[in-house]
Amino acid sequence: MTRPGPGGISFVCQSGAVGSAILDMATDSSLGFSKFVSYGNAMIIDESDIIEYLGKDPTTKVICLYVEGVNDGKKFLSVCKKVAKKKPIIAIKGGITEEGSKAALSHTGALAGSAQVYFGVFKQAGIINAEGLEEMFEVAKILEKTMKPKGSRIQIITNGGGYGILTTDAIVKNNLNLAKLGKKTVTELKKIFSSIVVVGNPIDLVGNATSAMYKESIEKCLNDSEVDIVLAIVLYQTPLLSTDVIDAIIDLNDMKKKPLIIVSTGGEFTELLKSNLENSGVPTYKYPENAVRAIRALVEYYVK
Amino acid sequence: MTRPGPGGISFVCQSGAVGSAILDMATDSSLGFSKFVSYGNAMIIDESDIIEYLGKDPTTKVICLYVEGVNDGKKFLSVCKKVAKKKPIIAIKGGITEEGSKAALSHTGALAGSAQVYFGVFKQAGIINAEGLEEMFEVAKILEKTMKPKGSRIQIITNGGGYGILTTDAIVKNNLNLAKLGKKTVTELKKIFSSIVVVGNPIDLVGNATSAMYKESIEKCLNDSEVDIVLAIVLYQTPLLSTDVIDAIIDLNDMKKKPLIIVSTGGEFTELLKSNLENSGVPTYKYPENAVRAIRALVEYYVK
Repeated sequence: MTRPGPGGISFVCQSGAVGSAILDMATDSSLGFSKFVSYGNAMIIDESDIIEYLGKDPTTKVICLYVEGVNDGKKFLSVCKKVAKKKPIIAIKGGITEEGSKAALSHTGALAGSAQVYFGVFKQAGIINAEGLEEMFEVAKILEKTMKPKGSRIQIITNGGGYGILTTDAIVKNNLNLAKLGKKTVTELKKIFSSIVVVGNPIDLVGNATSAMYKESIEKCLNDSEVDIVLAIVLYQTPLLSTDVIDAIIDLNDMKKKPLIIVSTGGEFTELLKSNLENSGVPTYKYPENAVRAIRALVEYYVK
Repeated sequence: MTRPGPGGISFVCQSGAVGSAILDMATDSSLGFSKFVSYGNAMIIDESDIIEYLGKDPTTKVICLYVEGVNDGKKFLSVCKKVAKKKPIIAIKGGITEEGSKAALSHTGALAGSAQVYFGVFKQAGIINAEGLEEMFEVAKILEKTMKPKGSRIQIITNGGGYGILTTDAIVKNNLNLAKLGKKTVTELKKIFSSIVVVGNPIDLVGNATSAMYKESIEKCLNDSEVDIVLAIVLYQTPLLSTDVIDAIIDLNDMKKKPLIIVSTGGEFTELLKSNLENSGVPTYKYPENAVRAIRALVEYYVK
């Protein structure tokens, strides 16, 4: 079993196996961890004590929690309310069905309780509820790496039309908003680009997109007050795109103007470039739907 | 850009970029392809012509479709109805929101039409509707690799309690059924295993599970008439589990008694073992929720 690199995620886990599998998995991804606590039966200290500690821990930016049962509900609510104001807490409740809660009883002895009560407490405390392990760590990634958005208006930039459409659908389905570019941005981009580029939302740079075109369009969107979040789809399979697009994205992200999220689907080469981006603080996703699901959590934590 | 290996998936795609990104991605996974068709504006032949051809193509086992708009709805419905009886069709409709359909108009010129009409046609034709690209290829994997289940009763085997609980929750949330082991199976497994093993659903082999314990329990479940599908969670992070568990699983899967699905989360080593399993025809998933989502499609196609 390998260990992940250092980072801002702390994982509080009532299941040893979930914890060790995720830590091992994280080694291959660009998820960096600060603390990992497997607390099992919670006989002496419990999840609330650990969350309270992590709330004060300077190297913890995001808290992930896998919990089967909480012993002291009032304590949990009051601690999480306090901590979630300072840093995001993402939780999965194991045993949200009757059958699952029976399994929890024979696992950690936890009295799983009503799922609806848990979801209510999560909402009151400002805890982000993840539906599964994949979602938890995709959400942790965006919250660890990027910054607070001012609103929920997302601008899409793509070099693949189909990806732009799927991303648009995902944004609308997740109750987020499509940005409407300011007039100045539209005029300037139309002046630079040939007429086959669609300057709307999505901005479709089409199949002959270059690194310079990405740089121009991302930069203008970051400077447009009508845009809160930039989601750029970068497909390296198109012929004119060279790898210096990575440097351009990293430089633009380093300006820390707005959240900048990347979507790239591909094989070994794409994965290598994805690691470069993530190690430089740019959250990158394989599929549009997963990126948008993570952005929804970012917006819910900071804006809604 | 790399190319995936041969296999039974054929992908019919109205977007060139979606197609080439997915083909590139598939090279790193164990998804094997038979045909890939990027048909764009569909000026001469359309999606229905291609699906009709693939319906008769002996090397195509599963058809994946990314479609923005269908020109001839009646033709599409009648072709898909016929083909979907012989082999599964999994479809994503691009432009299911008003905003997404506007983007489709400037992409392929497709008139996207009402999403509800599409979903109705998909249902009538027996087409599996995928919510996104990740789901489409996770579903394609299970349908390409495994066999027809007799019913929807799933037996979970795990060496991590938390994973068993998350899987149980996912099965119930997806309206699938938990198997109830036959008395003979329970008696026999209790006789073999120590008392800390939980013989129920999940069967929890706990942290000191061995390859022999997996072999025994999977075999007995495959032979139990109360079980339709076996979902085994295999976490290689536990100390006593050796890699010969892979050979045992492959041998059991080769008997072709029932669908056998594996969940393994982990780093480089886990991914290597996952490739071994998949190349031998065992569909393997990183997370329980994703495996169960794929099983739901398998059951919906063959059973419901």
